[in-house]
Formats: sequence, C-alpha cells, structure tokens
Amino acid sequence: MLTAEIIAIGSELLTPTKTDTNSLWLTEKLNEIGIEVKLKTIVGDDKLRLEETIRDALKRSDIVISTGGLGPTEDDITRTVSAAAIGRELVYIDELEQDLRERFRRWGREMPDINKRQAFVIEEAEVLANPNGSAVGMSVEIGEKFFVILPGPPRENQPMFTDFILPKLREKAGEIYVCRRFLRISGMGESAVDEAIAPIYKAYPNVETSILFNKSEIELHLSAQSKSANEADKILDELVTKIHEKLGVAIFALNGETMEEIIGKLLKEQEKTLSVAESCTGGLIGSRITEVSGSSDYFIEGTVTYHNDAKIRSLSVPIELIENFGAVSAEVAEAMARGMREKAKTDYAISVTGIAGPTGGTEEKPVGTVFIGYADERQIKSFKILLPGDRYLIRWRASQAALDYLRRQLLKKYDE
Amino acid sequence: MLTAEIIAIGSELLTPTKTDTNSLWLTEKLNEIGIEVKLKTIVGDDKLRLEETIRDALKRSDIVISTGGLGPTEDDITRTVSAAAIGRELVYIDELEQDLRERFRRWGREMPDINKRQAFVIEEAEVLANPNGSAVGMSVEIGEKFFVILPGPPRENQPMFTDFILPKLREKAGEIYVCRRFLRISGMGESAVDEAIAPIYKAYPNVETSILFNKSEIELHLSAQSKSANEADKILDELVTKIHEKLGVAIFALNGETMEEIIGKLLKEQEKTLSVAESCTGGLIGSRITEVSGSSDYFIEGTVTYHNDAKIRSLSVPIELIENFGAVSAEVAEAMARGMREKAKTDYAISVTGIAGPTGGTEEKPVGTVFIGYADERQIKSFKILLPGDRYLIRWRASQAALDYLRRQLLKKYDE
Repeated sequence: MLTAEIIAIGSELLTPTKTDTNSLWLTEKLNEIGIEVKLKTIVGDDKLRLEETIRDALKRSDIVISTGGLGPTEDDITRTVSAAAIGRELVYIDELEQDLRERFRRWGREMPDINKRQAFVIEEAEVLANPNGSAVGMSVEIGEKFFVILPGPPRENQPMFTDFILPKLREKAGEIYVCRRFLRISGMGESAVDEAIAPIYKAYPNVETSILFNKSEIELHLSAQSKSANEADKILDELVTKIHEKLGVAIFALNGETMEEIIGKLLKEQEKTLSVAESCTGGLIGSRITEVSGSSDYFIEGTVTYHNDAKIRSLSVPIELIENFGAVSAEVAEAMARGMREKAKTDYAISVTGIAGPTGGTEEKPVGTVFIGYADERQIKSFKILLPGDRYLIRWRASQAALDYLRRQLLKKYDE
Repeated sequence: MLTAEIIAIGSELLTPTKTDTNSLWLTEKLNEIGIEVKLKTIVGDDKLRLEETIRDALKRSDIVISTGGLGPTEDDITRTVSAAAIGRELVYIDELEQDLRERFRRWGREMPDINKRQAFVIEEAEVLANPNGSAVGMSVEIGEKFFVILPGPPRENQPMFTDFILPKLREKAGEIYVCRRFLRISGMGESAVDEAIAPIYKAYPNVETSILFNKSEIELHLSAQSKSANEADKILDELVTKIHEKLGVAIFALNGETMEEIIGKLLKEQEKTLSVAESCTGGLIGSRITEVSGSSDYFIEGTVTYHNDAKIRSLSVPIELIENFGAVSAEVAEAMARGMREKAKTDYAISVTGIAGPTGGTEEKPVGTVFIGYADERQIKSFKILLPGDRYLIRWRASQAALDYLRRQLLKKYDE
C-alpha cells in the first residue's frame, strides 16, 4: 500500500484562527484509491524548516503533496525551497509569463512585475495548468518518489489534483476500490442517530462508519474497500438500505447533496415555484436557494422584511397582528407566508421570523425563538422552534428548519 | 524569541473528516506570551514516524508540545515512543495506579487491567495531574529544550496547560509583548497591494508582515514584539499610518472588521438607513448585512427579485427597460435601486443584477457580468464589473463590490 504525506505551507496556517482544510479533501481522494496518509505537516514561510520538511517527507513516504506558497509575493517561498530541497534548478518559462499577462489583460489590468515569479518552475517538473488562478502547479518524479506541488486555494488545487494527479496516482496504486456513501440527516441529534443505527452498522465491521455533526445536520460517512468495485458497492448499498429503513424521512440526502439542492430537485420534478419571506435570517434562505445553478426555474422572489413597516408594506401583514402578538409570533409568520405567496403568485411560500440575538430576547421569547411559516394552495401553517447557538448558528439553523419543513411538505405530495 | 512546535498524535486526525483543533488554542496561548509556533505535525499511531517527529522537533525548536495518544489502549503509543525518542526509560509510579483505581471505584467500576499502562511515566519527568481524565500529562527538561506531553481532549489538556505549563513558559519567555494589527483591503489585487506597500513594510524588519487573499479582499496581518507593550504598539501605529497613507480608501478595516460591520458602523454614525434589491446574489447581501448584531437600526428591507416579474411588480422596474436593455443592464440596476429606495423610504439603496453562471452567459454579457446600482437622495448611479470565478465566487464578489461601493459613498459624506 502506498503512503502519502501532505505539507501545508503558509505562516497564516500557524496562527490561532486559521487551519489547514486542504488536507481533508486530499486525504479523502487519496483514501478512495487506497493510498494512506501517514503524516501531515503545517509549516510557515520559513525556508529552513520547509526545506527540511520536504526532504524528510520524501525520505519517509512514497507520495508528498504540498499546498500553498505559490503566490507572487516575497513570502511565497514554495517554488525556490522545493527546488532546493530536491537539488534542482528553477527554470523560466516564457509561455507562462505570456499566459499571465494575457490573464491580467482580460481583467483589464496590467500584470505587476512581481508576478513574473510565477513563470518559474522546477526543471523537469510537469507543469499543471491552473484555469482558476495565476499559480501553476508542478509534479516531479524523483526515483520511486512522487512530489506534487499545488497552490493553496481549494478552487485552484482541487481541479488540478483531479485532472492531472489523480489519474497518475490511480495507476501507481493499482487495483483497489474504495467506495463511499455520504448521507445527510436533519431533525435528529448525533447521539440519537448513533443509537438508532449502531446495531445496524456494527454488523458490517469492514465498513468504516463515521458520524459527524455539522451546524444543523448530521453527516454519515460510510466507506468500504475491496478488490472489485462491485463488491464494495453491493455491501454499501445493502447497509444504506437498512439505515434508510430505520431513519426514514430524516435522511434528506443519499449522495451528499445540500438541503438547497434537494429542495431544488423536488421543486423541479414537481414543476412548482417558491417564494420566501425572511426576517431574522435576513436573506440567508434566498441566498442558499439561489446558490444552486438553475434555481431561476423555481425561485421567483424573496422579501427581507427586517423592519415591521416592511412586513406591513410588502407582505400585507395586518398591523394588528404585530401589535397583538409581536413580530416574532406564529400569527405574523403565517401572515408573512400568505402575503409572500399571494404577491409572488407561487405554489409555495415559506417564512421565518425570530430572535437571532445576542440582544432582543425576553423571558417569554428568549434568543433563539423562531417561527417558521408555510403556505401552499390549500393551507397556511406555522411552527415554533427554540434554537441553541450564537447569532450565526441560530440564523443558519432557522434557514435549515424552514427548508427542511418545505422538503417534508414536498415529499408528502408524492404520497398523495 | 522562543520557538515552539506542536505535534498532534492519533490516526483519527489523518482521516478526511477530522482535524486537529488543539493546536489553535495552544497557538493562541503561546503567541500571547511571545512564543512563536513554527511548525505543526499531525502523526498517526505509527511508532517510527512519531519517534522521528519528536526527535526532529526537539532539534529545531525550543519548546515541543504533543497532544493525544495517552489513552490506555494498544494504539496509544505516546508514552513509550516519547521515552524512546529522548532516550529515557518509563518508570512505574504506584501512586498513579492507586489514583486510577480510586477514580474507577468512584464511577462504581473496577479498573480494567489495560489502564495500568497509564501509571507509567518518563523518568525525571514532571507529572501533570489530570482532574478531568485518566491520563496524566508530563513535562521534561532536556538541556535547553522543553518537552510537554498532554492528553488529547481539550477539557483535559487546557486546564493542565494553563495551570502547570503556562507559568513555566512565561518565565522562560521573559517579558515580551506581542502586538498585532489586522487590516482589510478591497478593490486591489494581492500583488498590487504588495507592490505598493513592500517598500514601506520592508523598512520595519522587526514587524512580521503577511498578505493574504481571501475571496474578494486582501488581509494584511502585522505583528511586532518588544520588551514593552507601548513600544510594539508605537511601531505598529507608525507602520499602519504609513500604509494607510499609501493605500487610502482601499483599506476598509483597521481592526479586522468585516465589510458588513464597517457598513453598519458608518450607517449608525450617520444615522442613515439602507435597503437592498438583489437579483443574482439572491439574498446574500441582505444576509451579510443582517449578520451584524444591531443591524435592525439601519437595515429596513431587502427584495430578492429573481424573476423579471418580481422586478416589475416589487421594484417598479419599467418593463420596457428589461425588454430593451435586458435584466442584466445598467438601466435595470439603476431602476432597481430607485424602486427599492422609494418603496422602503430609506436614505440609501443598493442593487445587484448579473450573471452568476455557470449557464446564462452570452458573448456580449459573459458569465461574471454584474451591474451594481446605487441610489441616494440626490443621485442614481450604476457601474459594470466583470468578475472572475465560479458561481459561488461571482456571487460573493458581487455582494462585496456592492457593499464596497456603498462604503465609498458613505465615506464621501464625511468630506462634504
């Protein structure tokens, strides 16, 4: 089995607030083809330590992948230090400079002189094109060892790794198939999920199971390895079916899709339209829905009625409801959903009104109190939830609760 | 200045889903007393690699702190491997075993035999008591070097570090004060910023400067240390003043504030109100503005007019403008801003209409084409930008461009 090490480069990754996340994605991709990550190093813009790290890694492991430090500035030292660590020269490639100049021209800007640095690559390295940024990557074969140098931003290094490196590694690693499943679950806690499904997955000791909590949902990762793809697939299909039977509608995605992608899929299938009225979430639900490409097929309009006047003016919420029950109430949530649906002439409307905090809570309605409203052609409903967390989490969880409620309503349509 | 390395031990930290977070807290504590973290390693339950890692770390850095691998099971190898790496024996401490037995008794359980392992410590190590778990920590002085071995769970290692290690390190580090500044810059690229300010910050070799690009803005981190807090502060104030003079209004935050926090601060100071009309950003601008606590003081309403009908219905955009110029046009952006401002009766309104992709682009208006509209009591304006990136980045950058434009308008008010 081939071993790999990952080196994350950049002093910002040694501060108290930044962490290297590139290695998680890379580890997943490496594991999928049966390559194990044995060590990760995070090193700053520090020539001596970086050079030693690269040398040691190439001594210990078959594959070494570095990310970061390929920018145009002084503190981007990966190019020079990597070359030194493996005893090679940097060579200038005129074509790369011309590419860079052209790239800047398209943005209507002149290439600054310092970007010239990015036209230097290690001799005999394969140059990895970067359509999403100015830094090219490199891969170098050093005897039996394979050294891969990638830029830091995931949007740049992920396509580069997938397109150029993965096929090569697959060849080196030989025929091992690792299959994975990624399920997402909403409306249940981490330990409740584990309690429900532990008796099921424990009967599959060859499947690696991990349960993670992420903001407002549970992620369930399953992976199985075998000599044939079919075999691993079959085992996982069987296990997923059993888990699905146990958890039912709480599982919202069987292939790692986001909640907004699932909502989009259901609305498209049913050829229905949606509008959204938001107060405490301030546009977050609209923003999530429209993050999905093609959402203009079903998403018509959103209204962020942050001020009470806006609720009255733009959603025809009766002023008496606000006066009698407060802006954060079941009555106002329902009136918002009704007003939004009628105005936008959509099949469905959802609404949110709540107290995201940290201020504004009362004894009766503490911070985290949120009402979700819902309207379709037959009914207008609402429900109340009390969400834990800080302002960011309360808003996120409120958006998730509203979308999940809509999802469950859309699924009911199938049953009718 | 003392240097430190952190070693996180445990195979689970080399999986695609788990990341080492202990080091973030430790880094913060170390930085506060002027100790710099130069390298972090994450290593599995792998004897050879761990031994090499500990040896190398102690060669390179003054202080080495490891977390994890002190449990009672087979794969908890930190005790034995650490002892081997520094050439010392493990010694059995009967008192520790009795403590463990007593601890289990209090839980109403018999101590499993494997827990005996946890009664072994490195000879001549100081034993660090653990009131919150079964694994004691250790600290060892090796000549000038200081090696600290902590358990993995934050609940166990944080009090241990604070109570036993921090006072010792403070003594070793002496009176050093570390001051930091965090500036944010918009409307300039990374290399343009560096070209402009490198001649300034290079005259301050004792200030550590790092320039980072983050989605749509440049982060500038400066840190200086000295024997007195005043002195470090003074140096940074001087440098920040010079950088500010050079970059001017492109610097939007001097204390790390987000764009939406700065917008909020300006609107509050000027006692003005804002509304937002969004198309391609789908609610993202509203969501960002309302992420700031207290935003209800100035943010009144947002409209997400995703469908053209919504633009006509809710923002009174004349249908002819859409027919003649297209929904993505300067004319429609201006009409959206005007309509939003009049409807919400706010001092300012901003609007965004554009093509976020990946589909919908044309030769004349490719993906990334975005028009930003602006309205105040005296004028209605718009401008066009062409944004690089995928759907996520185009939307984020469009939201940033709109907010930054508003910020620049708000700053002009001061000059009048």
